[in-house]
Amino acid sequence: MKNILIIGCGLLGSSLLRRISKKKIAKKIFVYERSKANVAKIKKLRLPGTIVKSLKDGVINSDLIIFCTPMSEYKNIILKINKDLTSKHIITDIGSSKKKSFEIIKKNLKKNIFWSSSHPITGSEVSGPEHGKQDLFENKWCILIKDKKTNLKHLQFLKLFWTKMGSKIVLMNSDKHDKIFSITSHLPHLIAYNLVKSAQEFEKKQKYDLIKYSAGGLRDFSRIAASNEIMWRDIFFHNKTNVSKAIDLFIKNLNNFKKDIISKNNKSILKKLIQTKKVRSKIIKLKQDINRPDFGRD
Amino acid sequence: MKNILIIGCGLLGSSLLRRISKKKIAKKIFVYERSKANVAKIKKLRLPGTIVKSLKDGVINSDLIIFCTPMSEYKNIILKINKDLTSKHIITDIGSSKKKSFEIIKKNLKKNIFWSSSHPITGSEVSGPEHGKQDLFENKWCILIKDKKTNLKHLQFLKLFWTKMGSKIVLMNSDKHDKIFSITSHLPHLIAYNLVKSAQEFEKKQKYDLIKYSAGGLRDFSRIAASNEIMWRDIFFHNKTNVSKAIDLFIKNLNNFKKDIISKNNKSILKKLIQTKKVRSKIIKLKQDINRPDFGRD
Repeated sequence: MKNILIIGCGLLGSSLLRRISKKKIAKKIFVYERSKANVAKIKKLRLPGTIVKSLKDGVINSDLIIFCTPMSEYKNIILKINKDLTSKHIITDIGSSKKKSFEIIKKNLKKNIFWSSSHPITGSEVSGPEHGKQDLFENKWCILIKDKKTNLKHLQFLKLFWTKMGSKIVLMNSDKHDKIFSITSHLPHLIAYNLVKSAQEFEKKQKYDLIKYSAGGLRDFSRIAASNEIMWRDIFFHNKTNVSKAIDLFIKNLNNFKKDIISKNNKSILKKLIQTKKVRSKIIKLKQDINRPDFGRD
Repeated sequence: MKNILIIGCGLLGSSLLRRISKKKIAKKIFVYERSKANVAKIKKLRLPGTIVKSLKDGVINSDLIIFCTPMSEYKNIILKINKDLTSKHIITDIGSSKKKSFEIIKKNLKKNIFWSSSHPITGSEVSGPEHGKQDLFENKWCILIKDKKTNLKHLQFLKLFWTKMGSKIVLMNSDKHDKIFSITSHLPHLIAYNLVKSAQEFEKKQKYDLIKYSAGGLRDFSRIAASNEIMWRDIFFHNKTNVSKAIDLFIKNLNNFKKDIISKNNKSILKKLIQTKKVRSKIIKLKQDINRPDFGRD
């Protein structure tokens, strides 16, 4: 049994906190949270664990350190805790983009200290400790990054840790990870933000009250476009090469769709609309979404 | 009390059928459905109403005729029923695009026969009579088209009819309708299809098994991209000018996002990500979506 320090106690951090406590997999749990508003929420919710006022207190008393802050904060935190880090520490993070953030980590982290990166594929458009749930990771994929220099002992430990969180484990190198998620997650978020932005612009220009007619499609995108802006800025910036390629692919295909529409190319458009439909069945079969029409909204 | 003919008994048609029967607002209900598979389903489900084998039987015995087929079928049906139409008939449709489809209707419909167009803002990614529900229209907007030549008596009748279906009524001319829904519905669907198509292309090229990691965003789009392909081809083709303008606006904004990402323009990207977030709250406030994180999936 280890002592665990969670740095950043928002949606993900507080979900880990709840789960670790519920499954009794730590001797002690420490929480470091910079936001006073979040600390007040954590206290009001009577979440388990000990809130530490300094990172030092957390680090020297813990074996496992989990970064749950936005990725842009890693550097500052690393510089603050470097002097207290020892080779006994297992360090991980839950960031959604891996290659660039690991470069920053490596550049700033004290020598001979290992960092093994994790990415649980879960979350929500809401943020903050009040939205955390102990079962947030249940049956969800957790990607563990295995690059050439990954410490295999730490990786082994994290495998076990995330299994206890309820996750299904996949190993992947950071290059492959960033490519895959640029398409399955980063691009969809960007597209959602962009659609809502375009609707806002159109509404302003045409002076139509169009948000009220969002039930025909726009509302689905608005959910994703309500996600935390700091987290998503970090992801877009950290994975900019892959995201930018994904945008190019998307625009190329959209222009092809436009051509089909303008020229009324029946065969070509039907082929596309039928093909994409199959993905939904695959997603349901792979249990990556619920099998209820309209998300069972009504 | 009128006799009602529903032409096309899929998701929407069968929902109307259920509702009309439940609220007892017709003396008799007739159903014309071309697909043998759907007719078998209707019988198996023991849905109310009388299935008519010929359009003629339905038309001569009805006062209100509701077109619930894909828009591309209107012309053929009109040409078949023209000879049996009289000035007593109130005719409407539920198509999602109005200007172009009304041009086709006008061109083919017998002289001195009126057609008043409706667009209930509801639906689902599933189709077929087995998915219909009597409360599909409950508290949903129904747009009634009011153009210069709209028959006001028929419009008045349809207002009452859709109110009985549970809808909230808005009057709009077809030009405004097609512009608004090009942004709130047609573009979102096209974007969803295009995202899934891009993911498929990427998967094929990179040989990554990426659909299995769709929980991070893609799965939301896949739901919309599972919608009926004939219906959506018709919408894209019928509203091609507005949809094509919407695509241009979307691509312009996406290229701006790309610039922000590549140049790491913190101020500009955060402004966008924060602004779009507000739309979600507005949508929830306007009761156009449920107020549960992640659509209450888990």
